[in-house]
Order: sequence, then C-alpha cells, then structure tokens
Amino acid sequence: MVDYTQIKKFLENRLDDSLAELSILCAQPSIAAQNLGMQECAELVAEMLEKRDFSIEIMPTDGAPVVYAERKGRVDKTLLFYNHYDVQPPEPLEEWETPPFEPVIRDGKMYARGVSDDKGHIVSRLHAIDAILAADGELPCNIKFVIEGEEETSSVHLHEFIEDNQEKLAADACIWEFGGVDHREVPIQYLGLRGICYVELSVRTADIDAHSGLVGSIFPNAAWRLIWALRSIKGTDEIIRLPGHYDDVLPPTERDRELLEAMPEVADDFKDRYGVQSFLKGLTDGVDLRVAEVFEPTCTICGFTSGYQGEGAKTVLPGFASAKVDFRLVPNQRPENVLVSLRNFLDEQGFEDIEITYLGGEPSARTDPDDPFVAIVVETAEPVYGIPQQITPLIGGSGPNYPFIHTLGLPVATAGVGYPGSQAHAPNENMRIDLYLKGAEHIARIIQEYAAAEI
Amino acid sequence: MVDYTQIKKFLENRLDDSLAELSILCAQPSIAAQNLGMQECAELVAEMLEKRDFSIEIMPTDGAPVVYAERKGRVDKTLLFYNHYDVQPPEPLEEWETPPFEPVIRDGKMYARGVSDDKGHIVSRLHAIDAILAADGELPCNIKFVIEGEEETSSVHLHEFIEDNQEKLAADACIWEFGGVDHREVPIQYLGLRGICYVELSVRTADIDAHSGLVGSIFPNAAWRLIWALRSIKGTDEIIRLPGHYDDVLPPTERDRELLEAMPEVADDFKDRYGVQSFLKGLTDGVDLRVAEVFEPTCTICGFTSGYQGEGAKTVLPGFASAKVDFRLVPNQRPENVLVSLRNFLDEQGFEDIEITYLGGEPSARTDPDDPFVAIVVETAEPVYGIPQQITPLIGGSGPNYPFIHTLGLPVATAGVGYPGSQAHAPNENMRIDLYLKGAEHIARIIQEYAAAEI
Repeated sequence: MVDYTQIKKFLENRLDDSLAELSILCAQPSIAAQNLGMQECAELVAEMLEKRDFSIEIMPTDGAPVVYAERKGRVDKTLLFYNHYDVQPPEPLEEWETPPFEPVIRDGKMYARGVSDDKGHIVSRLHAIDAILAADGELPCNIKFVIEGEEETSSVHLHEFIEDNQEKLAADACIWEFGGVDHREVPIQYLGLRGICYVELSVRTADIDAHSGLVGSIFPNAAWRLIWALRSIKGTDEIIRLPGHYDDVLPPTERDRELLEAMPEVADDFKDRYGVQSFLKGLTDGVDLRVAEVFEPTCTICGFTSGYQGEGAKTVLPGFASAKVDFRLVPNQRPENVLVSLRNFLDEQGFEDIEITYLGGEPSARTDPDDPFVAIVVETAEPVYGIPQQITPLIGGSGPNYPFIHTLGLPVATAGVGYPGSQAHAPNENMRIDLYLKGAEHIARIIQEYAAAEI
Repeated sequence: MVDYTQIKKFLENRLDDSLAELSILCAQPSIAAQNLGMQECAELVAEMLEKRDFSIEIMPTDGAPVVYAERKGRVDKTLLFYNHYDVQPPEPLEEWETPPFEPVIRDGKMYARGVSDDKGHIVSRLHAIDAILAADGELPCNIKFVIEGEEETSSVHLHEFIEDNQEKLAADACIWEFGGVDHREVPIQYLGLRGICYVELSVRTADIDAHSGLVGSIFPNAAWRLIWALRSIKGTDEIIRLPGHYDDVLPPTERDRELLEAMPEVADDFKDRYGVQSFLKGLTDGVDLRVAEVFEPTCTICGFTSGYQGEGAKTVLPGFASAKVDFRLVPNQRPENVLVSLRNFLDEQGFEDIEITYLGGEPSARTDPDDPFVAIVVETAEPVYGIPQQITPLIGGSGPNYPFIHTLGLPVATAGVGYPGSQAHAPNENMRIDLYLKGAEHIARIIQEYAAAEI
C-alpha cells in the first residue's frame, strides 16, 4: 500500500524547487512555427530527465528533434507519457501584461508562453516522479517519455517517427500531454481529439504592388482573388462547400450524446471569457452547443494578410495575398482527402491561381471510454479533486493521438494541470499553482495504481 | 523675348546644387499616413521658398500644415502651383535596394521615397524659378504655392482649407503637382482626375483571439465576417454591388474617346513593368483598355489583416479583422454618396457588425481641353521635348483638383518630371535626372509664356 500522505507532503515541500525548474524551461523560447530555440529547449528537457536517471536520447527528425527517455521500474509494464516542448508564437506581444518568456508568479498563477501548453505538464510529471522516487527509491513500473517539438505546428514529423520507432516506444498505456479541470473545478477525462488539415492559401497577381488609382480598373488584385476563393469554400451558412466533405463524418453515438449531456453548460463561460456575443448556427446552449463544439468539421481562417496594413490610407493594389486556413476533422475524415478535394474544388471554381501549401495535419482518434486504463485514471482523480474525472468523448482541439492509438495500439487518457482560464494559444497564458500540485499528485497516483493493477 | 538658352544653361550648370537640395528634402521622412515628420518637412519646404524671397506661411489645418508662399511679379497675373510634401509609407522595406530615406543617385536616377511623388516636382519648380530670377531679377508674373501635407491620405483637410482661404489663394491658372512623359518619352497633358472614397472596414467578434480547435465550430470568426462582407460588395465579375453605384456615372464623350484613341498602347508596358499576366474583364489592349482604365469606377482592396500572419501554422481564431478599401470615382460620383450607400448595403446584407471608418475622399474633376491656358502648357513642351504635350482627358489616379477647378475656378494643367518607371507608391521610387532638367525648363517656359500671353 502506497503512502500517499508522504507523497503529497513531498510535492508540497518541494513545490518551490519544481516551479523554479518550470521557470527555467518557460524562459527558453521554443516556437516551432518560427523554428526558434528548438534544439536548446530539447536539450534542456533532456537534462531534466537525465537528472532523474532516465536514459535519454535527442532523436532527430526532419523538423524539431524528439526527446525520448525511459527508465525501468519494478513491474514490467510500461506507461508512456506524451508531451511537447514547443509553444505557440507569443504574438500579439503588446497584449501581454508581462513578457511571454519571462515567467512570473502573481495571484497564485505562473504566467509565461507555454507554462500551461505544455511545459507545466512536463515538469509536474517530473515532480510526481521525484515524489515516488523519494518515497520508494525506484519506479513501480517502466516509464517512457516521448516529448516532441512540433505539436503546435501539427506534429508534422511525429507520425513517421512513431512508425519508425514502434519497438522502442512499445508500451501498455499512454498519458496524454494535457488534462485538468473545467470551469466548475471538475477534473475531466478527454478521450478523443479532432483531426486537422492546416494549409496556407496564397496568390500572386503581379511581381510588385501597383498604384490603385492608375491600374485599379484593369489589374487583377491578389487580395480580391483570395477573398473570392475563400468565400467559395464557406459562406455565412457555415457549410463547407468541398464536395463530399461530410461523406465520411461519423455522427456522435448515443453514448457520446449521453456523456456530453452530463457535461456542464459552457455558454456563459465562453461568453464571459472571450467577450463573444452569440454562437454560430443559432446555437445558444445545452447539449446541442456541446455536440456542435466537437462533432462538427470546421474551416477556420486563422489569419490573412495582404497589402498595406498600417495607419491611415495607402492607395496600393497588392500583388500578393495569403491566408492560414485550419480545417478541423471529425472521425473518420482524413487530412489527405481534404487536401485533394480543396485543390479540385478551387480549380473547378476558377481559382487555379490560388496556391495551397500544406502546413500539417492528422486524422481524429478516440479511446474507448470503457478501457480499464481509463478507469484507473478516472478513479485516481477522486482522492485528489474530491470527485472522479468526468468523461468527455471528444474535444475540439487536435493532436497526434492517432499514431499512439492506432499504430502503437495504446489506450490514451488525460491528466494534467490545465483549467479554462489558462489562455493557451493567447496572450497572458498562465497556470494555476494549486492545480499544478493536484496534477502532480494525480500523476503519482496513476503511476502507482496502474503498476499495481491487474491489467 | 526671353533668352531660353541662358535659362537652359543655368539649369544645367546648377543642376548638382538643385539635386543636393532635393536630396535634403527626400531625406526628411514625411509620411502622412503615419503622421511622421510632417511639421519638420513643412518647415524645410518653407525655408526653401523663403530663400527665393517668397513670403511664406505655415498654415495649420486639423491635420498636417499647408505651406503657402507667394511672390509678386512684373505682370499682375497669378500662377498657382499646387504640390504636396507628404509621401507614401515606404513599406515593404525589404524590397528597397537602398533605404527609402537615404537618397542616392545611380544610373542617372535619384532613388528615394517621395523623389518622384512629389518632392522632385517641388524642387524642379524652385530650380526653374532660380533660373528666371538669375536671368531677369524678378518674376514675370505673380506666383503662389500651395504645398499640402496630406495628398497621400486623400487631402482630408485641403477642401476646407481652400474654402476658407479663397481670397488668399485667388489666381488665374494652376499647375498641378505632377506631369511628365509616357513610356514613349512623349510629354502628356493630364486634364482630369478620378475621385476617391477610401475607407477602412473592420469587425470585432471577440475581445481576444481564441483557440481554433476548441471553439472553431461555434464562435464567430472576424476574418470570415470581413471576407463575406467584402465579397458581398464585389464578385469576380468586378461589378460593384452598391445599389445605384453607377447611376451618376458620366460616360466618356466622343471627344474623350478620340483623345484616348490617339494615346499609345499600354498593354505590353503594363505587363512588362508589373509582371501582370492579363487584364480584367477580358480586356486585352487598344482604346477599350484605356477607356476602362480611367472611365470605370473601381473598388480596390489595398490591404487586409487578421490573426496570425507569421511563418508556419498557428491555430488561432481571430477576434478582429480589418481591410483598407479604395473606391475610385468617375465624373459625377460623390464620395459622400458612396459612404451612405456602403453603410446601407452592408446593413441590408446582414453585416451591421462591420464598422466603416472614412479615411478620406474627393470627387472627380476635369479641365476643358480647349482652355487657352492648357494650350500654353501643351505648346511650351515642344521646344523642350521635341513635341507638344499629348492630351489625355482623365487619368486613373485621384487628387484634390475639385476645389481648385470648382471652388477657385482655375484651369488646371500638368507639367512635371515623372515617367512610367518612377515606382511611385512602390519600393524603389525614383526620378530620372534628364527629365528633372526638362521638367524645370518646361516650367520656366510656362511661367514666361503665360505671363506674356493675352489671356
């Protein structure tokens, strides 16, 4: 029988040391989209694991390297932690209250780009491992880490990495990179992710920008071309017009709807947090809003740019325009199909001039809510949070769970330090320190109970 | 009888001094759109006029100040020069071969932002005045200068300035801020300008950007809203959909078509210079292309911006988007009508959320090709360029000629130092030094012959 009182005491007593370690990690920029600080950050993460007597490897890919680590434990069962050391770009910088790569603690939260997504999760897991080692001297089961550097750019090289290293990565169960509580403080078990197909659309109509007065009547305009092409893909009805785009969509099952029915209302929280006035498609609240949130494919413009964007007026006719477009996919849509159908569609609509650059993608994947490993993760939350995790069948975000679930054949469950105010992907990203402690304790319990369980 | 040999010799002998003066003026940034260096540049221009014994006033407006200057001449007839000391923003900076505010001469051209539009015109006129004063000791007629600082931002305050100062600005004829030769080296008399209505359209759908995966199915997206609103204004057929937008349009007269018929082919020159593959609306070349170029209203997107625009992928759902939109107007369209009809149209299309910010505008205006002052300007070009100016009835660009023609009641003609490769409004703006000399000589002849003429 494990003495969780001792583990909890260790986590609390050594909290400051662990946060100091997290600060160092957050101060190291690691922006995958800009290829900034990736090798440095990988080395920093590897050192942290090496300090815990993991054997580590910084494994190259065609993009950012993967940090792989393993340490044997008493029982020959293997728990694999998937994390990522890359972060989102910090822009717009002017909206940060303190600089994104200078971590600070205020009001019980640590603020920094990446502190919640995903560096806080990495270091909280190390904190849990430290507590177990301090109590016991060894790990109760084998632990492996796969910590990649391209999660925020659609994990472009991770699928191939996993295909190529199936033996090395062999495991029995996987804890995902994130997890945490919802706005009621209820811990949530997220059992599936949407897929994604992320592209840049661009068009060049002239070698140089021109004077809008002199040639505005007769020159093609890159900004207009892009607008018309985008508009052909989706209109105000929110229907994605790529032929067959909804053909492979698996609608939610009765079980999915039941699980979502049991989830709390999100409408007011979204409105308060983002200042959004209303939702799309006439949705207001209830299970319909929650089903739409995750079980509908999306086509989101993440950004666009063309011509003059400064103060005041500049009478220029732009020769170049581009947009970032993010298609979220539900089971069983495939990113490679979206790419083909987008090209065909744009050609048919007369937009052969629009170039498509694929910036990454992955299919959706889900773990069975009745898997026994899921039960362990759900139940070990209760002594930490006062209640077991509540199961949600699918979430709107994406991640490379497909190769873990389908190539490595693992059940994938979530546990972590997140909460709805974390501002992941936005300015003033932060992590609550009370949840950091709880997340670490939950991880320690998962490791212990999984090692002890008959599965 | 004026000794033009002496004037020409002076212009040549003192060329380097004049170019040095122009360099100083170009080195002073004066970006109206960014309110950068405006007062400094106004003072510099005023000093240059004061050196020529003009009485000067730096007259405040609600925007950049206007430099006003006058000097009496032998005959009590007044020629008014309209110029502007502001310049276009220099962006994109990376496309300049040398920095925009560090003027350099290479291959017989001076390169700098504003060297052609419009500082070269200002200083070449001073050079002509110097030559006349050196030959004669006084001016043959009264000369006034109105040099404003907001031409590149649609001369927002100039109309009111002219209304308020009609007596001070009283004159008999006006030389416009630009002029020059076409790609055949033929000097052109530009007798009218299109109008403009320049607006910024913007929309905010949330206080902060959100995670595109988490809320992409249910949150409104500012970038999509703006795209849909823009697309409702104009489609691939290039027809502007604002109700009644074409109602006031005066089609070109037979005389206009004749004048344009006599103008040279522009198609190949445009294609070579801008790398444009084809023109809009199936136009290929000939008089139809030239008529469309100037006698058709436009709606040009000059720029748009939203969300993430950096390298790679960022999975963000933008809460804000904006676009710069430039409507060019032909006789007799009015910018204030466009504003009203745009607001009504967007509302009717369901885009009440799109904000319109008016960034400036003016109606189109034209001078009669048979005006006797025009004849003087056209004919004085012949001894300088080898042929008289060729008359074009209207050009695609805009400028505040409406209050000069309709409020002050002046014939407005053009003479200057421009040429088609000047890259006005684009990177690597430049001015040919041979044309600078010719432009100055033409101005000297206009002043002399106008003073001597019986008009």
